[in-house]
Amino acid sequence: MQTKNSKAFGAESAQAPLKEMNIQRREVTPTDVEIEILYCGVCHSDLHSARNDWGGTIYPVVPGHEIVGRITKIGNQVTQLKVGDIGAVGCMVDSCGQCDSCEHGHEQYCRNGHTLTYNGPDKYLGGVTYGGYSERIIVDEKFVLKVPKNLDLPAVAPLLCAGITTWSPLRHWGVTKGSKVAVIGLGGLGHMAIKLAHGLGAEVTLFSRTPNKKQDALKLGAHHVIISTDGEQMQSVKGKFDLIIDTVPYVHDINPYVTTLNYNGTLVLVGYLGDLNPMLNTVPLIMGRKSVAGSVIGGIAETQELLDFCGEHNIVSDIEIINIQDINAAYERMLKSDVKYRFVIDMASLKK
Amino acid sequence: MQTKNSKAFGAESAQAPLKEMNIQRREVTPTDVEIEILYCGVCHSDLHSARNDWGGTIYPVVPGHEIVGRITKIGNQVTQLKVGDIGAVGCMVDSCGQCDSCEHGHEQYCRNGHTLTYNGPDKYLGGVTYGGYSERIIVDEKFVLKVPKNLDLPAVAPLLCAGITTWSPLRHWGVTKGSKVAVIGLGGLGHMAIKLAHGLGAEVTLFSRTPNKKQDALKLGAHHVIISTDGEQMQSVKGKFDLIIDTVPYVHDINPYVTTLNYNGTLVLVGYLGDLNPMLNTVPLIMGRKSVAGSVIGGIAETQELLDFCGEHNIVSDIEIINIQDINAAYERMLKSDVKYRFVIDMASLKK
Ligand SMILES: [Zn+2]
Ligand SMILES: [Zn+2]
Ligand SMILES: [Zn+2]
Ligand SMILES: [Zn+2]
Repeated sequence: MQTKNSKAFGAESAQAPLKEMNIQRREVTPTDVEIEILYCGVCHSDLHSARNDWGGTIYPVVPGHEIVGRITKIGNQVTQLKVGDIGAVGCMVDSCGQCDSCEHGHEQYCRNGHTLTYNGPDKYLGGVTYGGYSERIIVDEKFVLKVPKNLDLPAVAPLLCAGITTWSPLRHWGVTKGSKVAVIGLGGLGHMAIKLAHGLGAEVTLFSRTPNKKQDALKLGAHHVIISTDGEQMQSVKGKFDLIIDTVPYVHDINPYVTTLNYNGTLVLVGYLGDLNPMLNTVPLIMGRKSVAGSVIGGIAETQELLDFCGEHNIVSDIEIINIQDINAAYERMLKSDVKYRFVIDMASLKK
Repeated sequence: MQTKNSKAFGAESAQAPLKEMNIQRREVTPTDVEIEILYCGVCHSDLHSARNDWGGTIYPVVPGHEIVGRITKIGNQVTQLKVGDIGAVGCMVDSCGQCDSCEHGHEQYCRNGHTLTYNGPDKYLGGVTYGGYSERIIVDEKFVLKVPKNLDLPAVAPLLCAGITTWSPLRHWGVTKGSKVAVIGLGGLGHMAIKLAHGLGAEVTLFSRTPNKKQDALKLGAHHVIISTDGEQMQSVKGKFDLIIDTVPYVHDINPYVTTLNYNGTLVLVGYLGDLNPMLNTVPLIMGRKSVAGSVIGGIAETQELLDFCGEHNIVSDIEIINIQDINAAYERMLKSDVKYRFVIDMASLKK
């Protein structure tokens, strides 16, 4: 298969900082589009993959799955996109397309395994896929999203992971005008959850451990902020919420939040992978028909729906733009939650 | 308020065996019906309440919330029932009737607290309510169910608790023809879950720890039995079930069952109140948008729906009839799961 050299930024080992490297991209096949990457958001998963925190990273790894760029070439069977269009790519670049999950537009739950945008098995070239920290990417048109023209392009990038990760549960659990939604944690995911739930007409509450995030949360669209360490405030929202989006990425006690669910309510974990410690108590689940659930990213049609919704409601991420050369420093700041609320790489810096 | 003496069987302390006693029942108010109790099912809750296993029992306690009997008197505002009718009473005898839960027919989640059939605060006489181990009971007509004429009366009694406890989640989570449903545990609740899921047209699997329940499960309507201690069998149902009804009343590891849920699937706990130990792992929840939920009994309209469904499908509980004088021995046998699948007291024995 014909390939093309592409500049990229990646890590050669778990201990190595990210640095400039060259990777090979396939030439466009009949159903592919080539995208010149303009902006790429920086997700916590990028950092965890680069450092092999979850195991399974194959090096070199080129992270990045919040990709916005300009289409520079298309295959001869591409019908929905044309050269010059703005295209976006999220966490997946392929799936089996045959199973019932794929048929229902739930490629994120593909039974035969979707292809992740980076560090996934590359069906075309062997080895693994390389992500958005690079000059260009070649993707099947089915996995390329259209971006509404009115939105600020760099601030669109985080919609492709942080946005869809919170949008999908908001939609799946039927959030609508008047729904009572709470968000736990105010980071990349949390700030998008607030904006999107607000956009859907919900009454939005942020749970925060400290009072210093209150003004920011209200500005983002939250109607209330509850300090989770304040017993009286927690008591005041007992039995209130139809849906809680829990974005906290580390182990934490979810029991106090379960008591704030309305009967029939659901707490959806989107950030923490691991054992629920302390143990989850079943009494409030049983006595109030409550659920604890999880959700991961979202399907392709759902991602397009999100982008269109954001276009209509003028919603984008709050971002800080960086050059690719600052990515290692940005990772360190992310570890300290020192970003409001997402770093986005201006990929023009890779050409320097 | 006028009262009437009524023979009953109850416990005077956590250590005392149940014995005959006299209790006071109110005279029927305009909206009440008086029921001469013919049969009363024996629920695990009866035993736990009698022995104060959960705390909170007020003595003397007269258990029993699977009640079937004949209406012997009605108040002058009663419109839906008449003297001579067969009436049934389940776990609740009242609720606020005003809150949104009650308005939606979810009296089991009444925001102002429903009145349990026994050991609940008695609004009329003070003290606590007394249950079905007695000659008669006086209940507001709204909480009295109608029994289809074609069903065997003693075998109807367990529908009022074991039946509705499994029916409500089957209905709430939308089980229908072709749904893949699993049931964990083959006791009073489990055997009803199998019959009802089968009646709804689902493909039903029983999870059992031992192979010796297989023939019984198939006879009750299960299509498959999976031995949960057999790794290969468990692997064969990975990702299969839309709904799992977990009836196990003691602490157990639910993680192996969560992996057998289909994406979007739900495991509903109806038997175990306490901490999930070992800890629940969130990875399969997140990666498959799965839920762990709980459910308790069911609403009054839903209970009537269940009884009507059972009438149409000729479904009743499998029971062993006992005399009230044998109740203490029956409790001991229940503790050893030595009953197929529910004891029902022939209340005529109380007259002896
Ligand atoms: Zn991400
Ligand atoms: Zn698929
Ligand atoms: Zn019961
Ligand atoms: Zn109520």
